[in-house]
Amino acid sequence: MNCKTLEWKNKELILIDQTKLPTEVEFVTLNTLQGVFDSIKDMIVRGAPAIGVTAAYGVAIAANNIAIDTVEEFKTELLKQCEYLETARPTAVNLSWAIHEMEKVVASYMGDSVEELKKQLEEAAIDIHNSDIAINKAIGENLLSLLNDNDTVLTHCNAGALATSEYGTALSPFYLAKEKGMTLKVYADETRPRQQGARLTAFELFNAGVDVTLITDNMAAEVMKEGKINAVIVGCDRIASNGDTANKIGTLGVAILANYFNIPVYIAAPTPTIDMAIATGADIPIEERDGEEITIINGDYVAPKGVKTYNPAFDVTPSELITAIVTEKGIVRAPFKEGLKQLFENK
Amino acid sequence: MNCKTLEWKNKELILIDQTKLPTEVEFVTLNTLQGVFDSIKDMIVRGAPAIGVTAAYGVAIAANNIAIDTVEEFKTELLKQCEYLETARPTAVNLSWAIHEMEKVVASYMGDSVEELKKQLEEAAIDIHNSDIAINKAIGENLLSLLNDNDTVLTHCNAGALATSEYGTALSPFYLAKEKGMTLKVYADETRPRQQGARLTAFELFNAGVDVTLITDNMAAEVMKEGKINAVIVGCDRIASNGDTANKIGTLGVAILANYFNIPVYIAAPTPTIDMAIATGADIPIEERDGEEITIINGDYVAPKGVKTYNPAFDVTPSELITAIVTEKGIVRAPFKEGLKQLFENK
Repeated sequence: MNCKTLEWKNKELILIDQTKLPTEVEFVTLNTLQGVFDSIKDMIVRGAPAIGVTAAYGVAIAANNIAIDTVEEFKTELLKQCEYLETARPTAVNLSWAIHEMEKVVASYMGDSVEELKKQLEEAAIDIHNSDIAINKAIGENLLSLLNDNDTVLTHCNAGALATSEYGTALSPFYLAKEKGMTLKVYADETRPRQQGARLTAFELFNAGVDVTLITDNMAAEVMKEGKINAVIVGCDRIASNGDTANKIGTLGVAILANYFNIPVYIAAPTPTIDMAIATGADIPIEERDGEEITIINGDYVAPKGVKTYNPAFDVTPSELITAIVTEKGIVRAPFKEGLKQLFENK
Repeated sequence: MNCKTLEWKNKELILIDQTKLPTEVEFVTLNTLQGVFDSIKDMIVRGAPAIGVTAAYGVAIAANNIAIDTVEEFKTELLKQCEYLETARPTAVNLSWAIHEMEKVVASYMGDSVEELKKQLEEAAIDIHNSDIAINKAIGENLLSLLNDNDTVLTHCNAGALATSEYGTALSPFYLAKEKGMTLKVYADETRPRQQGARLTAFELFNAGVDVTLITDNMAAEVMKEGKINAVIVGCDRIASNGDTANKIGTLGVAILANYFNIPVYIAAPTPTIDMAIATGADIPIEERDGEEITIINGDYVAPKGVKTYNPAFDVTPSELITAIVTEKGIVRAPFKEGLKQLFENK
């Protein structure tokens, strides 16, 4: 993407302001803990992996700003600030995960140089960043192996570069294809009610020069019927041990349509989203969100005030509708229960 | 509906202003030809049957305003005004059909009283109005015979009272059920990009006290999966002689989903929408509309400016996905080709 989600430069973190997209492209440069905290809280950065990487750099920034020379006092102050940063969005798993990784660096440092520890923290943050990119690239390479030159892929919601530090998961193959000189086209569902497909997916692919066509969600069947789609690729929020996949509302419908038209359905899945403790999708709770996400767009009512709504944020696609789950460690096909288990055993 | 689409009262036509819905409920009272012309042109009234009835009353209004005593001169002047009215929306079939019906009344009048002819014209307009209501009621009764008390129906787009003079086609059973004390619930797809489901269907059912829940189009699969839906009922724009049905974009997807979940799909179809001259849906051209319908909502961009879009306004549902085509003359099931043919032979 021409405009990177996040960039580490001269000990400062540069974020694209995702609250302004897609109409304005603005960047914020962060060099204080409070700035990083606010950026996460106010959703200037969103998407679990991107939040994790941002938090890691946040700890590095906090460390650099602490003017204490003795290691123990420095550690105490930094851990206090880490605790604060973790409250920016309490439910984001990647946020606490990344901060805990940084805390491990603090705990394991046995030297007596604050400067040396600061350097190690910056390196750890860069490692977390690079590891996220590597996972996304590996998922992208695996997805690419399932596609042919000139294929057109339909995607839903945004599992793209804007949700990660680079490449994204579901959108990773399109960036990699561009790097390799291979041609792939994309149809992006707008993904009501929050329109992540229009606001984020269409934005980031369009800016990167990927051939993307925006459609409304209810046009997916028609473009499939017209023979325009070779594969469906979507991200996921949580995968049960039998392969049932929770993802943004509408994914289930897209998967049923794709099966009707004999189009393969691929789930782009970093292994941490696979929850082996859950037997089936029936055990994944579906969050219901405020109905005004449906009735109000950009501040204006588009439906009668007071009308009843139903706004499930996710749905669960049963594994029998899924052709393959594509992770950074490999491609899993039915029977998914066995395949997913092996994935973790081979670790 | 508490707020009628159109009403004839004291030789004036009262229209609900559909350009203001769903946030404002305003009425316009028309007593001049120009007023009727502008209301059709500016889409204060829309929906083919509603436009037809409005035009018929428009001719009656024009007649009442002509201060000529001799029948021949009166006829000449009125036919000139009819010709003008027909240009309000040149492509609307029902507009010219209704005006031609009124012109037949003019042509066949052999008396010498302008007042008598004016009276006949008003009666003819009222007949056209009542006939539209009768067709809608008959479709509604036939649909009701396929439903059970406490059923919940999913509908797409607006084939409701606002598109006709009363009752609507697809929404007719809900108004009739209310009159009969029967309970039916409705899920309304918002129907992007123009949101007729949110702006019109949810509005008119909500105002009439029908239990309606608004969802985004991509939630249809989830509500079906949750067992909430007993039947799908939609309107149609054109039906081929084999039963293939063109309707608002998204209908095809809903029909595929309903079949996946074993939910019956009913098409509400006044017989004039059945085109026996067309062999299959492949012969129905799909209109592609401006992409800004997708990228702009209420004047604001919701997608990156300049991004490519695809905006088919309709899709064609193959007859094998349709459980029954429900007309004012009866219910047709597969094999549709034979059933539809019989419908016209029994006329």
